[in-house]
Amino acid sequence: MKPAKIAIWGIGAMGSGIARLIGQKEGLTVAGAMDTDPQKAGRPLSVFTGCEDQKNVLISNSLSALLASQPDAVVIATASKVREVFPAIMAILDYGKAVVTTAEEMAYPWKAEPELCARIDAAAREKGVAVLGTGINPGFVMDLLPVILSAACTEVKRIRVTRVNDLSPFGPTVLKEQGVGLTAEEFLRKAEEGILEGHVGFPQSISMLSDALGLDIDRIEQFREPIVSTVRREEKGIVVEPGMLAGCRQTGIGYRKDEPVIELIHPQQIHPALEGIATGDTIEIFGTPDLRLEIRPEIPGGVGTIALTVNTIPLVLQARPGLLTMLDLPIPHALPCPGVCPPVR
Amino acid sequence: MKPAKIAIWGIGAMGSGIARLIGQKEGLTVAGAMDTDPQKAGRPLSVFTGCEDQKNVLISNSLSALLASQPDAVVIATASKVREVFPAIMAILDYGKAVVTTAEEMAYPWKAEPELCARIDAAAREKGVAVLGTGINPGFVMDLLPVILSAACTEVKRIRVTRVNDLSPFGPTVLKEQGVGLTAEEFLRKAEEGILEGHVGFPQSISMLSDALGLDIDRIEQFREPIVSTVRREEKGIVVEPGMLAGCRQTGIGYRKDEPVIELIHPQQIHPALEGIATGDTIEIFGTPDLRLEIRPEIPGGVGTIALTVNTIPLVLQARPGLLTMLDLPIPHALPCPGVCPPVR
Repeated sequence: MKPAKIAIWGIGAMGSGIARLIGQKEGLTVAGAMDTDPQKAGRPLSVFTGCEDQKNVLISNSLSALLASQPDAVVIATASKVREVFPAIMAILDYGKAVVTTAEEMAYPWKAEPELCARIDAAAREKGVAVLGTGINPGFVMDLLPVILSAACTEVKRIRVTRVNDLSPFGPTVLKEQGVGLTAEEFLRKAEEGILEGHVGFPQSISMLSDALGLDIDRIEQFREPIVSTVRREEKGIVVEPGMLAGCRQTGIGYRKDEPVIELIHPQQIHPALEGIATGDTIEIFGTPDLRLEIRPEIPGGVGTIALTVNTIPLVLQARPGLLTMLDLPIPHALPCPGVCPPVR
Repeated sequence: MKPAKIAIWGIGAMGSGIARLIGQKEGLTVAGAMDTDPQKAGRPLSVFTGCEDQKNVLISNSLSALLASQPDAVVIATASKVREVFPAIMAILDYGKAVVTTAEEMAYPWKAEPELCARIDAAAREKGVAVLGTGINPGFVMDLLPVILSAACTEVKRIRVTRVNDLSPFGPTVLKEQGVGLTAEEFLRKAEEGILEGHVGFPQSISMLSDALGLDIDRIEQFREPIVSTVRREEKGIVVEPGMLAGCRQTGIGYRKDEPVIELIHPQQIHPALEGIATGDTIEIFGTPDLRLEIRPEIPGGVGTIALTVNTIPLVLQARPGLLTMLDLPIPHALPCPGVCPPVR
């Protein structure tokens, strides 16, 4: 069988990792790449992936050039919000190609953007292809994994998921978005101004859990508190002195009639080990039976999102047409990896 | 929407628990029940489930009587092996009804029984209904859960799953099948004679993992060692003196060219806490990244199988026709539970 041809839109940390991993998978091949950054357009993809056999894939700067490679699906790894990736999705659907995107809000997009979703869904059905958002969080740790764990329960009353992770592997942009290196005052001011992006995805994860388990959430609230360091920490040139922010702790709560039935707790910081904090993902289901699942250390965010995106592509290519979520697909799993590229870590 | 009508074949510990849980689920109702035990046939199902609204469901002793209730699907909870449930499955398919079964080997049946499976598959397709085997193990802890966890990995080299559980909640038949209360000599003799059933499902779980992850297993071996108690333990009238068996430790290993790439380790015993042994399910993926998942205490076997069976029924009713596995279905999850029956524990 000929490998499916995949094009990648957005050759940043995620997009280049996705391209590299596709290069390792038997049934997939990278047919094209695109980035609007003039530093990237025109250069061989191999410069960004380290995969020798991607040196003939030149990064284009236009969608028409990207689609000239006749991909079966396009991966969009450019932005977080439905609104931001909507034009790209519609343009790709116009050419009749399937879409997989790492945009966080696309992991469960209907609640936040019903109109845009209806348009994506209609276009996808018309063209007979599927559109999916996925990633490690939202998309897996705080939603899909608790959903499948619940299958072993006769009743679920309440769910709590805690993801304690280390931001150190991420780039300076992500660190700054999380408030790393700010004073508490700066953090509060920036938070008020809406400058700090933080984690995108709580409403999506909460909605997926509520819909799948019939928890009837009627209100979602999000909170953000600074994580003030008591020790000196440093990463990517950002220095955190004691009293400054090592990151922030975000919480998303889904209420049913003022009762909190879904709690998502997500403290993100650089070098948590310096204060003796162990990282990990914890899923607690309160029901029959109570279940407590731990993954220690946490599933790393970057490689996890790259893996989920690539591992899901074959399922999307075989799925029914329309705007789908992970709940619509069969169980995803790691694709066999007999390839020769450098490992994706 | 009218609730789907489900009939249960086999009103033992599993079947009665399944009936009770169906009674709690909005979209499902118990239409009929059947058991060949003359102590049960003719009596109201409510006697065995405690659900008042099942008092008009009389337990029949024939399939034609069971199917007179016009179920949408029949749950078979009578035996462990494909060979044992094959006649029942074919008889139900003859009436054009979907089948869900707790028979362990049916969780991934093709490798062990390709001919019987081909006949089931053909009959199911002809009638336009699906057939599925499920349960906690095989069906979930040692196969489906590691499969979905692997979706967060770019590469999987090796998998180890350990399930340390407490047999105490099970009935005397199960305890005896596991060797509880035997001397080491009796155990070895009975094991040689093939009298001890033990855990059924290692080849099924190993095959599912190998197929899903492309691990290319070419040989499966199973081992069984006695768990000799150093303390006195007692359960269901079975006394285990020091030096006698509290249970047994079973291992299933999948090899690729003599390299063990899938290890399933399953020590089962009564009252492990008396020797300070903590129960739990542990999944270790060796790859990129390495992942370690723990569920402590373990997902209880009885309630877990009941939950998975009932929670999967709606997916089976909507699935494509044929003999399916959990890999063919969308993500299972706990069904909402607004009912009034006593809790299923």
